[in-house]
Amino acid sequence: MPASVPGPATPLDDRPPVRTEHDLLGDREVPAAAYYGVHTLRALENFPITGTPISAYPDLVIALACVKQAAAQANRGLGLLDERKAAAIVRACEEIRGGQLHEQFVVDVIQGGAGTSTNMNANEVVANRALELLGHDRGAYRHLHPLEDVNAGQSTNDVYPTAVRLSLQLAAARLLGAMEVLRQSFAAKAEEFADVLKMGRTQLQDAVPMTLGQEFAAYAVMLAEDQARLEEACALLREINLGGTAIGTGLNAHPRYAETACRHLSTITGIPVTVAGDLVEATQDMGAFVQISGVLKRIAVKLSKTCNDLRLLSCGPRAGLAEINLPPVQAGSSIMPGKVNPVIPEVVNQIAFEVIGNDVTVTMAAESGQLQLNAFEPVIAHSLLKSLTHLRAGCLTLAERCVNGITANREYLAGLVGQSIGLATALNPHIGYEQATAVAQEALTTGASVHDLVLAKGLLTPEQLKEILHPDNLARPHARTTAAPAS
Amino acid sequence: MPASVPGPATPLDDRPPVRTEHDLLGDREVPAAAYYGVHTLRALENFPITGTPISAYPDLVIALACVKQAAAQANRGLGLLDERKAAAIVRACEEIRGGQLHEQFVVDVIQGGAGTSTNMNANEVVANRALELLGHDRGAYRHLHPLEDVNAGQSTNDVYPTAVRLSLQLAAARLLGAMEVLRQSFAAKAEEFADVLKMGRTQLQDAVPMTLGQEFAAYAVMLAEDQARLEEACALLREINLGGTAIGTGLNAHPRYAETACRHLSTITGIPVTVAGDLVEATQDMGAFVQISGVLKRIAVKLSKTCNDLRLLSCGPRAGLAEINLPPVQAGSSIMPGKVNPVIPEVVNQIAFEVIGNDVTVTMAAESGQLQLNAFEPVIAHSLLKSLTHLRAGCLTLAERCVNGITANREYLAGLVGQSIGLATALNPHIGYEQATAVAQEALTTGASVHDLVLAKGLLTPEQLKEILHPDNLARPHARTTAAPAS
Amino acid sequence: MPASVPGPATPLDDRPPVRTEHDLLGDREVPAAAYYGVHTLRALENFPITGTPISAYPDLVIALACVKQAAAQANRGLGLLDERKAAAIVRACEEIRGGQLHEQFVVDVIQGGAGTSTNMNANEVVANRALELLGHDRGAYRHLHPLEDVNAGQSTNDVYPTAVRLSLQLAAARLLGAMEVLRQSFAAKAEEFADVLKMGRTQLQDAVPMTLGQEFAAYAVMLAEDQARLEEACALLREINLGGTAIGTGLNAHPRYAETACRHLSTITGIPVTVAGDLVEATQDMGAFVQISGVLKRIAVKLSKTCNDLRLLSCGPRAGLAEINLPPVQAGSSIMPGKVNPVIPEVVNQIAFEVIGNDVTVTMAAESGQLQLNAFEPVIAHSLLKSLTHLRAGCLTLAERCVNGITANREYLAGLVGQSIGLATALNPHIGYEQATAVAQEALTTGASVHDLVLAKGLLTPEQLKEILHPDNLARPHARTTAAPAS
Amino acid sequence: MPASVPGPATPLDDRPPVRTEHDLLGDREVPAAAYYGVHTLRALENFPITGTPISAYPDLVIALACVKQAAAQANRGLGLLDERKAAAIVRACEEIRGGQLHEQFVVDVIQGGAGTSTNMNANEVVANRALELLGHDRGAYRHLHPLEDVNAGQSTNDVYPTAVRLSLQLAAARLLGAMEVLRQSFAAKAEEFADVLKMGRTQLQDAVPMTLGQEFAAYAVMLAEDQARLEEACALLREINLGGTAIGTGLNAHPRYAETACRHLSTITGIPVTVAGDLVEATQDMGAFVQISGVLKRIAVKLSKTCNDLRLLSCGPRAGLAEINLPPVQAGSSIMPGKVNPVIPEVVNQIAFEVIGNDVTVTMAAESGQLQLNAFEPVIAHSLLKSLTHLRAGCLTLAERCVNGITANREYLAGLVGQSIGLATALNPHIGYEQATAVAQEALTTGASVHDLVLAKGLLTPEQLKEILHPDNLARPHARTTAAPAS
Repeated sequence: MPASVPGPATPLDDRPPVRTEHDLLGDREVPAAAYYGVHTLRALENFPITGTPISAYPDLVIALACVKQAAAQANRGLGLLDERKAAAIVRACEEIRGGQLHEQFVVDVIQGGAGTSTNMNANEVVANRALELLGHDRGAYRHLHPLEDVNAGQSTNDVYPTAVRLSLQLAAARLLGAMEVLRQSFAAKAEEFADVLKMGRTQLQDAVPMTLGQEFAAYAVMLAEDQARLEEACALLREINLGGTAIGTGLNAHPRYAETACRHLSTITGIPVTVAGDLVEATQDMGAFVQISGVLKRIAVKLSKTCNDLRLLSCGPRAGLAEINLPPVQAGSSIMPGKVNPVIPEVVNQIAFEVIGNDVTVTMAAESGQLQLNAFEPVIAHSLLKSLTHLRAGCLTLAERCVNGITANREYLAGLVGQSIGLATALNPHIGYEQATAVAQEALTTGASVHDLVLAKGLLTPEQLKEILHPDNLARPHARTTAAPAS
Repeated sequence: MPASVPGPATPLDDRPPVRTEHDLLGDREVPAAAYYGVHTLRALENFPITGTPISAYPDLVIALACVKQAAAQANRGLGLLDERKAAAIVRACEEIRGGQLHEQFVVDVIQGGAGTSTNMNANEVVANRALELLGHDRGAYRHLHPLEDVNAGQSTNDVYPTAVRLSLQLAAARLLGAMEVLRQSFAAKAEEFADVLKMGRTQLQDAVPMTLGQEFAAYAVMLAEDQARLEEACALLREINLGGTAIGTGLNAHPRYAETACRHLSTITGIPVTVAGDLVEATQDMGAFVQISGVLKRIAVKLSKTCNDLRLLSCGPRAGLAEINLPPVQAGSSIMPGKVNPVIPEVVNQIAFEVIGNDVTVTMAAESGQLQLNAFEPVIAHSLLKSLTHLRAGCLTLAERCVNGITANREYLAGLVGQSIGLATALNPHIGYEQATAVAQEALTTGASVHDLVLAKGLLTPEQLKEILHPDNLARPHARTTAAPAS
Repeated sequence: MPASVPGPATPLDDRPPVRTEHDLLGDREVPAAAYYGVHTLRALENFPITGTPISAYPDLVIALACVKQAAAQANRGLGLLDERKAAAIVRACEEIRGGQLHEQFVVDVIQGGAGTSTNMNANEVVANRALELLGHDRGAYRHLHPLEDVNAGQSTNDVYPTAVRLSLQLAAARLLGAMEVLRQSFAAKAEEFADVLKMGRTQLQDAVPMTLGQEFAAYAVMLAEDQARLEEACALLREINLGGTAIGTGLNAHPRYAETACRHLSTITGIPVTVAGDLVEATQDMGAFVQISGVLKRIAVKLSKTCNDLRLLSCGPRAGLAEINLPPVQAGSSIMPGKVNPVIPEVVNQIAFEVIGNDVTVTMAAESGQLQLNAFEPVIAHSLLKSLTHLRAGCLTLAERCVNGITANREYLAGLVGQSIGLATALNPHIGYEQATAVAQEALTTGASVHDLVLAKGLLTPEQLKEILHPDNLARPHARTTAAPAS
Repeated sequence: MPASVPGPATPLDDRPPVRTEHDLLGDREVPAAAYYGVHTLRALENFPITGTPISAYPDLVIALACVKQAAAQANRGLGLLDERKAAAIVRACEEIRGGQLHEQFVVDVIQGGAGTSTNMNANEVVANRALELLGHDRGAYRHLHPLEDVNAGQSTNDVYPTAVRLSLQLAAARLLGAMEVLRQSFAAKAEEFADVLKMGRTQLQDAVPMTLGQEFAAYAVMLAEDQARLEEACALLREINLGGTAIGTGLNAHPRYAETACRHLSTITGIPVTVAGDLVEATQDMGAFVQISGVLKRIAVKLSKTCNDLRLLSCGPRAGLAEINLPPVQAGSSIMPGKVNPVIPEVVNQIAFEVIGNDVTVTMAAESGQLQLNAFEPVIAHSLLKSLTHLRAGCLTLAERCVNGITANREYLAGLVGQSIGLATALNPHIGYEQATAVAQEALTTGASVHDLVLAKGLLTPEQLKEILHPDNLARPHARTTAAPAS
């Protein structure tokens, strides 16, 4: 909870100075130093939920400033806002976009009201900073009004969804960067391990040989595909409903406002946003949020699977698979000396579980929208921004503190391939499934090697066997999968 | 559970005739009449879980036959399967594709083994039917073998995912058709209700006027967007891993098998499938399934929201919103005479809840894959096919038994607009937010109308008010949203 | 879809005979042979969703018959139903409870209307069978009416929730039996493996020694605890709302009906049901369903964790942990000869994923209830009955086809303990955490054993080491955990 | 991220003083002012995920201090820790329990390592504060060691789960208090509205009459039941695994340590904790966490349903149900003057969606545990503490800022009952279901009242009708549901 809200216990004389503001419920004292106003103050009192203010998501604050700036520029161009006011609003927005005044965005990330309090918070901060720039006192709204000027031609119901969409794109861009870092880490390891022969496994049972490089290349390809999906989901976020005002009919906005504001917003952000075809639909529609949430869940699912694999392959050091070694990053136990644990994959698993839970939150919130609006967009925004931020942290941490330092136990792996019963599969086309099965079963029972049994039974000549069991023939029979992963 | 499996209680003389088959575990008697064999029989015994056989999904059975046919044609072309055997296999597959022998696909929809039992079931049915076509007895596998011939160059791990992907596309195509039916129903109602003025609502509170046509048009647009998303998700399913065999390295498949089989499969199905770039990755990757599941969840979320709205708007008949009337389709109560309930939207809500639950099942199954394979693909396939099928039924039912028969209470709706305090919003640009607030509050307290108060206070002239409150100006200030929904 | 509904393609002369029934929507022809009537027929047409009729859950059909019987007995006792009608209704219900006429319960498991169609189906089948017993034709409702007699003093809104609660208890009792079978399987293995020393693992890294018996005992204890939780959840289901009629106010029911019917129901079922304290609350409340769903999810989570462990411990045969061997139950691969997979744990994992998904479905359906009733109880009932049934199948299958046949690789396990670096932990109290860490790190780097290093460094005497590293001291330092699991 | 970690940009001379500590990875400089040490520092670097330190959950920090104190007292009693060290540790713990040094608990709430970093953080802070109390420098671990002394006889794997269980009980106790506040709010309104007659609704359609008091009483009863469930779930948390050390075998702990420490912990906390029967099972078991998560989800589901109802009943002011008025707490719109929205129920809905999502996170984390430990307990703790905290805030906010101020539109509600077609239900026992249906349909079609139609048709006398339609007979036919809700 922000410290600037006056508490009851402060002795009268020491109370910080206040100013009086007015809303539908009456008069209220606002800290004189605050850039936010009475509407924000009400929201602070109404929503003491998480203790996390919206300033925890700088992307959202910046996106709000972008929208307010675009609206002011559009209204100025349409003759609805005078030059002096517009200039002050624009400059206030630019300051916020540059990182200033973020601490004034104090309403809780979980709030009732479909984002109204967030929009009010933005209107008030922009208005008071603009007033200041114009030489007026904070709260002197007769000179420049948070609602009639800063919010002119706007409604929470078009401003807030637009700002959320922008903020998601900003955050997604950073996640994409982190995914690329991680993808390159896996790709570099794929190259490093290109000639490390090992047993592949299906259903946790020894299957047929492959290289460790192929295993890591698959992780890189998975990420590349997920990057492509995330980019597609972001494209859907570029369709905005700014100009729809309260319910999408555009009531109170100038006929050319939507296009004009949208054009300004594209210029300001560098993101090519477009006006939705049906603004009534766009105002109530959570589809793009559900879609990106689904894609984040997909990324989480695959990252988690990858981390499960890393933990499994490094299981040991002596009583496990012990195929690879993760770099030690901290002591693993307060009781077991020398124990090192796969803590980096473990933290990524947990981020993934959180993202998957967030997807359910988003789903329920989206499903609960009613008629012309979804009142639950704040928790959608909160969940998505959290998922994007945490996934990014997870990808970077995984790349830098784990994948880059992985080493392979080459000789051990090669030895396992030689002993493997899975070699019998390669004999299939030469001696048939039923005979190969008999050899495999005998090998398993007696502990003998497939190689020796086949020779002993005279099923193949040594030369044939050597050719069939040559590492390259086993792991890359057609050299098909060595192609560079598409990204 | 299929009746053809001999039970212990049958008296000895009346026991149906059997044949003996052999697998890794030993000899077993199979009903002589069965086209399936010993591997299927084991699976029947191992997985008595749901009682629902895979034949419940004809799309999956047909897809399996397509894959087996494509493989046989590819192997024939590559000289790995003799003409006579290939012809018999192809003909057996064509019969299955035509709807025959589906009752022989008896393994449970939830099964261990990553689909092995489903693939074995397919291999055995195709082999035995092909044997029959060649004039041999069922089970005479020395003439044509389920594994060495029907499954030649294949593994469950490439056959099964490929078949599942095909089956999902077949089912998705039918869902898309049903969504189009429903979209057209909503679009027709949008046109019918284009001039029905009503109050829009945000956060369940009276907001500003709109038309009922705009409300229904939004539902049509939502569906159109969901159709587009489903088509995109289907495109991802067209990348297959056939030819990767056990773990994606292609061991035991001819170097040109993957491309050749893929080409045949495109021809057979009419679906332009392509070989994945990295078959090791493609073999373990559940991304496309998670993606389509996310899209089905999105469709469910929006259908559910739409049905919530329909139920809410028809709440009544006397003590509710009573804006629209859903056609009665059955008596609503065993105790309340004359009560009619919104049972069709209610059933669609329930389908949506099921689909959302299925998405969690798919998520967990996908996350649980390990190393080179996901062993849990059967429950993924089951969940997705169920979601696709039920959503399709829901869309058709909703269109035909509900939306098409909806009527509007026009006069009642118009009356509410006239009394509404939401009209104050339209006065905003003319008398300012603060004065409009005062009017709105007085109207609410006194019961007076906004119109009368504004006149009484002399804030606007009667002419100004008439112009501002003209229905067209309220609901379609810019005639922007009347554009046809994109589809 | 039931075959008895006449289709349009049947030639006129061969059409099955029909009778005419009437409802709020008009007259309809019902197959003369059907025990169900016009209300059921409407529901069949309205809800062609899953193709699965409610008869798929015999527990639900039996529970409905129990409720109808209890209501008839109560109404007879209160003088509201004449002796002859009551006797016929009671006998019809007893037949249904005995397994007859279940095929007449044809409405879809997913249906709109809060269970009205299920209640109507029951009313009609009971009425028509009772009419038959009284010597009347089916459909001759003037002699005995589905609503006025069979449903007397009842509403769907008290009958259906009561029947669902009963059916869940019947199904839960069978699940509890299956869990006990599985618990005993694990307990028996715990005893069999009581002296098999092995390395315990935390975070997939070698930790400290334990016995395989302790590992399996934990699975038995987990099940015992879950059994206790399920029994507690069932107790909540015993509070019913029968007698509340439409919304819990008891309108149209005799003042003593609720208690009387409840007493009869306890007698009929042998389950001590009680009337809820606040019937308005009880009528809308889904709490007990959410609770049992949460417990089923808990069971699923732990079963899945257990199966993950079984698959991990049996990972091999040569390139994995290879601690235990699961009994082979079918050939594991269509391409890899001799491969055997952990298909039984895999199918249980999939059941668990389904149950967890079902929990989300139940959650959403419960959250979506409005005002005096939850319209979505059918999908709640369907999801819970599915979860109960599949979990039961999973427990039995896991016990009989997997756990009972598990064997241990004793010598191999003992060898791993001797080589383990985890032994350093046991030295902790004797040489300190920091020195033990140094030993562990040197062992890891050089490949030497902890035992030899400690001796070489003179940190402990051979006698001390022998005592400290004695298997019993390692695995059961206090012999505390050998106590029999509580059940 | 804590400011006390030295950043690279600080000019050399101004760098804060440091001390050097050592771990398995080598030497590291720790800020001299920090009470935490090298293990915490590593964790800070390894887990830059959420930016939220564990001190965000004071309950968890306090619980950790309780466990460390109990362990020290137990070790002192067993002669394993000398009096002077023990006294210093105990005093340090008491300070932390009193709220001091919480800012030193800096590791991220989402962290790898099964809670090791949290335990290390606690060990280090306690050790350094104890050293200070003993007159030594921070970091002078030869005098008192974080692991050998503070953590003596302990492992993260018994300390952390025990502390988490305690912290959940502390947080749950506060949630229970808030639920009681809310329950009393609803109960008070139930009394206030005891005589407000209104139409009950099922499936959003007018059903039969009831009182608004009955409606609100149901909300109070729901909460009372949920309180009981939460208390039961808390009871399960009282079984702890302290003394099990690394994997539950108790290695390195004194044979009497578990009971002794448990007894001390009960005394310190006032919570009667007990030692689990099977510590191997208890160490890996997440059952109690899954259980309480399920109960929190249940609470969320019902709170959300209740808030949905409040929003629905207050839908208006003119074009909705308009049955009740929620107190205005802030302006509802930046564009619609005078609009007031149900923002308090809306924020509670969003908390509920978050809690339901958290349950999925907990489920996945619990399912992913492997063998002797669940590595993902930190995200379980984080999710549960978040849910408990936010639900508490939601309950208090809902009571104080919404429910307490609700008013009813009495006359309007009474009028709707008189016009209602649902009255026909009350006629059922007098004129039969079929005739009542005909009356209801005619009333609906013609707009006439049920009362007038019955009289006009001579179906009942005016006296009979008056008696049947008397408000008390309609809403409380048996005065059954007026009983005080059980709590």
